[in-house]
Amino acid sequence: MQNLLREIAILSSTSAALDWDQETFAPPQAVDFRSKQLAYLAGKIHGLKTSGAFQEGLEDDSLGEANQRELRHQFDRATKLPRGLVERASETSSLGKAAWSEAREKDDFSLFAPHLAKLLDIAREQADHWGYEDEPYDALLSEYERSAKTREVAALFDSISDDLAQIAVAAVEKSASIPANFLHGPAPIHEQMTLNREIAESLGFDFQSGRIDTTEHPFCTTLGPADIRLTTRYDKNDFASSLFGVMHETGHGLYEQGLPSEDFHLPSGQAVSLGIHESQSRLWENHVGRSRPFWERWLPRAQELFPHLRPIDLDQFLVGINRAAYSAIRVEADEATYDLHILLRFKLERALLSGELEVTDVPGAWNETFESLFGFRPGNDTEGCLQDIHWSMGGLGYFATYSLGNLNSAQLHQSAVQDPEVIQGTQQGDFIPLLNWMQEKIHAKGSTLFPQDLMESATGSPTKPDAYLAHLRERFC
Amino acid sequence: MQNLLREIAILSSTSAALDWDQETFAPPQAVDFRSKQLAYLAGKIHGLKTSGAFQEGLEDDSLGEANQRELRHQFDRATKLPRGLVERASETSSLGKAAWSEAREKDDFSLFAPHLAKLLDIAREQADHWGYEDEPYDALLSEYERSAKTREVAALFDSISDDLAQIAVAAVEKSASIPANFLHGPAPIHEQMTLNREIAESLGFDFQSGRIDTTEHPFCTTLGPADIRLTTRYDKNDFASSLFGVMHETGHGLYEQGLPSEDFHLPSGQAVSLGIHESQSRLWENHVGRSRPFWERWLPRAQELFPHLRPIDLDQFLVGINRAAYSAIRVEADEATYDLHILLRFKLERALLSGELEVTDVPGAWNETFESLFGFRPGNDTEGCLQDIHWSMGGLGYFATYSLGNLNSAQLHQSAVQDPEVIQGTQQGDFIPLLNWMQEKIHAKGSTLFPQDLMESATGSPTKPDAYLAHLRERFC
Repeated sequence: MQNLLREIAILSSTSAALDWDQETFAPPQAVDFRSKQLAYLAGKIHGLKTSGAFQEGLEDDSLGEANQRELRHQFDRATKLPRGLVERASETSSLGKAAWSEAREKDDFSLFAPHLAKLLDIAREQADHWGYEDEPYDALLSEYERSAKTREVAALFDSISDDLAQIAVAAVEKSASIPANFLHGPAPIHEQMTLNREIAESLGFDFQSGRIDTTEHPFCTTLGPADIRLTTRYDKNDFASSLFGVMHETGHGLYEQGLPSEDFHLPSGQAVSLGIHESQSRLWENHVGRSRPFWERWLPRAQELFPHLRPIDLDQFLVGINRAAYSAIRVEADEATYDLHILLRFKLERALLSGELEVTDVPGAWNETFESLFGFRPGNDTEGCLQDIHWSMGGLGYFATYSLGNLNSAQLHQSAVQDPEVIQGTQQGDFIPLLNWMQEKIHAKGSTLFPQDLMESATGSPTKPDAYLAHLRERFC
Repeated sequence: MQNLLREIAILSSTSAALDWDQETFAPPQAVDFRSKQLAYLAGKIHGLKTSGAFQEGLEDDSLGEANQRELRHQFDRATKLPRGLVERASETSSLGKAAWSEAREKDDFSLFAPHLAKLLDIAREQADHWGYEDEPYDALLSEYERSAKTREVAALFDSISDDLAQIAVAAVEKSASIPANFLHGPAPIHEQMTLNREIAESLGFDFQSGRIDTTEHPFCTTLGPADIRLTTRYDKNDFASSLFGVMHETGHGLYEQGLPSEDFHLPSGQAVSLGIHESQSRLWENHVGRSRPFWERWLPRAQELFPHLRPIDLDQFLVGINRAAYSAIRVEADEATYDLHILLRFKLERALLSGELEVTDVPGAWNETFESLFGFRPGNDTEGCLQDIHWSMGGLGYFATYSLGNLNSAQLHQSAVQDPEVIQGTQQGDFIPLLNWMQEKIHAKGSTLFPQDLMESATGSPTKPDAYLAHLRERFC
């Protein structure tokens, strides 16, 4: 069984490598054949995960109970999908990404619409094969968030949506006097790369087994147990946009680098869920990256690299990086308004899947719902319903995990800073003790516990909104 | 059979993608797991190429006679190798490349020696499995140069070695008054990239299905029918070093882009041999790239980008780029001395394989033979026996094809310039008619003819030294 799982790990990481290349460097005409390569690998992996050998291997007690449980779950999910559907899903998402990229560039939703329709059909088929309790969304969500229920997530979101809206209003109002371009100024890409790298390194990211490249949409992917790739994009006039993106992806990367590498092929060596993954990225991006102790250490260096920051003192700078405003783009949204973007997507995804919303009506529905949450409409579809890569990759049921990640990150941070070593390090701008805490409580566990049990073991309780709302109120109200 | 061959093409090109990534971007710690991925793919490919299904498929007449002949040959070669040896070869070469790279950086042959010993053992085992007429080298050479015999290649080289030595002496003497750094001067990498790209594009390289990256050792590789990757390296003080390298790799790339892409999975859509491949790279690097009509068109552009060239007129410039001198590094050698580097490697490789030469004695033997050919010793092993990547990849029996390529390139060029359209284009600095000629006579044929039959069909004769010696004498004597 171990050898079969190693084979699957080799094929999966090879697929990740081809995918990374397609996003970063592959020439435009390469995409057709690349989609065939990826579909082939997806089919092979699916074949192995549904094989008789895999089923027999599930009885191998040397794997340990948790690995057996997770592998049984994977086998169950995989055998429910016909191989043709798996290959079609891979090829469709490969072509979908290329079409999305072009549609976004040309601000033309119609170029992406037929692909989205196909991706939705596939998602519905998948949900039907997997089965679900209440609605198709359940089946998709649990692909990303083990053992989560749409109903419970929706209830959790409903319970905080008013608080989130109030916090957003208060934060935006408080920031009204801070100009949008408060921290903008010439930021040559080379200098941005320097600062990004120095900061990622200081947070503990190991560049001997990782790197940062440039893509349209930032992401983190794992090409091997010692090969974690982050990406970012650059705004020549705003160093903070790329930097906070890099701290976010560094959080994902630290989680991947912190997993037990000898178990790379086993659930015990793999990330447990996106809601936990996102807790790590948001931890480093927001709880660390937008805090006073962090910038006490780093503002002087940023001022060296970007002279326009020199007249700005630490207090002003913190006000600048924690400025809140309603904006169209999710990945550039501040903490105070971020979850509103998720509520929008969660609502639209559920409507698309249930059939209440037609693909051709997506731009209209997007803009309408957006206006009800943010009070204005996006300037165009590139800044609206075309901004995210997720749907183009077939990633439906994914967005909810971002807000779960926000809640988890605050709850984990609140627990971690009870530890004297973490406090002491934090006060000196040294966040390695915080990383050590996360490695011990989260990273080292891999997928041995369900996400909610992991949260309970690390913080004493499953995901609750208290720490997150308290954090937002403290920072913005 | 077509589907089986498509599967092999997908796996081979996936392997090429992982390999490309290892050379260009992969972080240092990634190499261990990457070598496992590559070994796995090599084993899979070998499994398919030796399968019962493959053997049965050889009877499929719809493939056409030439494809059946080549596939039968491949099956025969593949079935003679045990799968364990194939996987070991892949893993050893992956680790060998990493060790070579480190040894080269540290100028320490001893770091590479144990890897070279293992690679030699594997090469000898391969030769034993494949069988050979006269010497083990035969079995390896014919992996790169279909149906070539070491004896015949050695005889061809022997027949011209005195001429080559004389031409080198005359050329070096004639160039004695030209300073080595005649064309050197500030060449920012960004400007070098611009010129490299403009020139590669003007020669017909399609950047929609290809790109250029930076590596320690330049190469060209094929990741898919519309995905050809070239690499180069930069000297900040010598734009010509990278540019001629790029023209060389562009020649390889044009051949790959010119192959019938619908036959990507068949011999009829694949390059026939390294001696033919190298004829294309040397054609664009030397016959085009070092010619007057080419620089009549491009010198003004180079002078725009590199102001230090502005005082130099076309005649002086041509003298500069055709300056001959004995140098330690093969890939930077001029045409007049290049083949001496090959004679050295051909001699040492045969001695290593026959067991006459021990691995630990390589640096000494290299320097001694080098001195007898060039009149001086390399300054260190990095500039001596560690300069080439080939052995570290298990590429033994490969170097002879470089000189075959030189002979072929001159002979093909001589024939092509009989064509009035080629002449007319060339006179105007437009080399697309020359590319069209090569596409029709060479690229379009894939592997349907043996290399020597292909040369005969294109030029009226198998490889002869006449055109090459005449070209060198005209240019250097």
